[in-house]
Amino acid sequence: MSKELSYPKTPANKVNRYSNRAHYDTTTIHNIINTTPVLHVSFLTPSDASDASSPPHPTILPMLGQMGSFTHPSSDESDALDCYLHGYTSSRLQNLTRSSSSSNSGGMPICVAATKLDGLVLSLTPNSHSCNYRSAILHGTATMVEDVEEKIYAMRLITEGMLPGRWQGTRVPPDETELRSTGVLKVVVSSASAKVRSGGPSDESKDVERAEVTGRVWTGVVPVWEMMGCPVPAGEGVGGQAPGYVAEYVEGRNGREKGYAEGAAAGRVDGGS
Amino acid sequence: MSKELSYPKTPANKVNRYSNRAHYDTTTIHNIINTTPVLHVSFLTPSDASDASSPPHPTILPMLGQMGSFTHPSSDESDALDCYLHGYTSSRLQNLTRSSSSSNSGGMPICVAATKLDGLVLSLTPNSHSCNYRSAILHGTATMVEDVEEKIYAMRLITEGMLPGRWQGTRVPPDETELRSTGVLKVVVSSASAKVRSGGPSDESKDVERAEVTGRVWTGVVPVWEMMGCPVPAGEGVGGQAPGYVAEYVEGRNGREKGYAEGAAAGRVDGGS
Repeated sequence: MSKELSYPKTPANKVNRYSNRAHYDTTTIHNIINTTPVLHVSFLTPSDASDASSPPHPTILPMLGQMGSFTHPSSDESDALDCYLHGYTSSRLQNLTRSSSSSNSGGMPICVAATKLDGLVLSLTPNSHSCNYRSAILHGTATMVEDVEEKIYAMRLITEGMLPGRWQGTRVPPDETELRSTGVLKVVVSSASAKVRSGGPSDESKDVERAEVTGRVWTGVVPVWEMMGCPVPAGEGVGGQAPGYVAEYVEGRNGREKGYAEGAAAGRVDGGS
Repeated sequence: MSKELSYPKTPANKVNRYSNRAHYDTTTIHNIINTTPVLHVSFLTPSDASDASSPPHPTILPMLGQMGSFTHPSSDESDALDCYLHGYTSSRLQNLTRSSSSSNSGGMPICVAATKLDGLVLSLTPNSHSCNYRSAILHGTATMVEDVEEKIYAMRLITEGMLPGRWQGTRVPPDETELRSTGVLKVVVSSASAKVRSGGPSDESKDVERAEVTGRVWTGVVPVWEMMGCPVPAGEGVGGQAPGYVAEYVEGRNGREKGYAEGAAAGRVDGGS
């Protein structure tokens, strides 16, 4: 029996509510991060300089990212990994990280969240309504990646996370200008947790026992998944039908996502309801 | 010509990068929040009590929420609105909000983010890869809703946001126990912004002019949208096929989401590319 790697439970990541839905193992957490195309990244922006009494406040940016290990690139999702982030709107975050990295050794405190909505759970009464979902939260500190080899590793990781096979399918490697203009953040994870909810509605007996309620209200689950459509060719490239690796990924991913959401609705996957 | 309401540009919300993608009007921002089933909510957790030098760090929770106005319930998305939040994991957030509300009049600083992924934008080189998306960020302060009428207003708003018609389709109104056990947060918004990216890839001329690149690399957009599947009935309720308001919403929403993503891929919707 192999030993399963888990994040330690700390006050920062311990799940208190619906703790039967909590997971701390690396495989579950890293897989949710890696299969969620857009991550939400939270950090503190400094207080308003014109008002010394105003506290720092949290900001969120949507970013692309993947879990990986530059020092052990053959690692899989069960191993200890870092989170690499690359965002279209990250210039402010990058500046904050740079100043934070230079002023203290730990980097900038950061939180990364990934949520996959798997279904709407419709119960007898609004209070018992819920969602099927898989969510993961990482807490850690972020620094800018300066090493060129590590930056290329991360760019490849994130591009392949978006669409497997895409790195080799494009003009690579990035040139010097592209490397200079690309900001990649590395998050060293200090704690992490996941929550998974699956299955049908969970109603209270006070409603389940009332025939005038159960005879009138429809209950069940609407499965929800992220769907990828038919690729639309652009003018710049070779044109025509998308290459096999694109079409195969789209088809395979759609099948997996749909299958999971329908399985969760029918109670065929693990996860505290 | 009607006057369009917008959030003011401040240092907290001003979009610096790709500012051609920025929107500050209430309609765009509120619509993105209202059509995103799961919101990401960020707030500060206190520093570790055992280590006075540790700074507060940001945390993110996935929550359900909707924009609305209890004092002007007939308002639409173009009006000034508050954000009501209800989360399955919000007990820690609710406790922080309660203590923050009692210690100062402003409530707890909070950030709410909503992101809709509309497509993968595949260009000639990894650096130019992007996503079509609609994202909105609200900054504001959160307080607990204590007034019973306002709490019922918010519960109805959030239930109807999840699935229009559902409130009347269930056992309502909530009883006293349910009202006591339900925590609803009201976020008064101080600043907000949205970013929208649509259209095909945008490549640099250095690559577009190289025939050995354009003749080999496929470029285009994979449309992405949130798909709702066939409703799965549960044991507790009336059973059988889902009622008309459920099936019609699922069908209508799928059509709108698919249509938007495909329109964005083909460059038929507004939004800076």
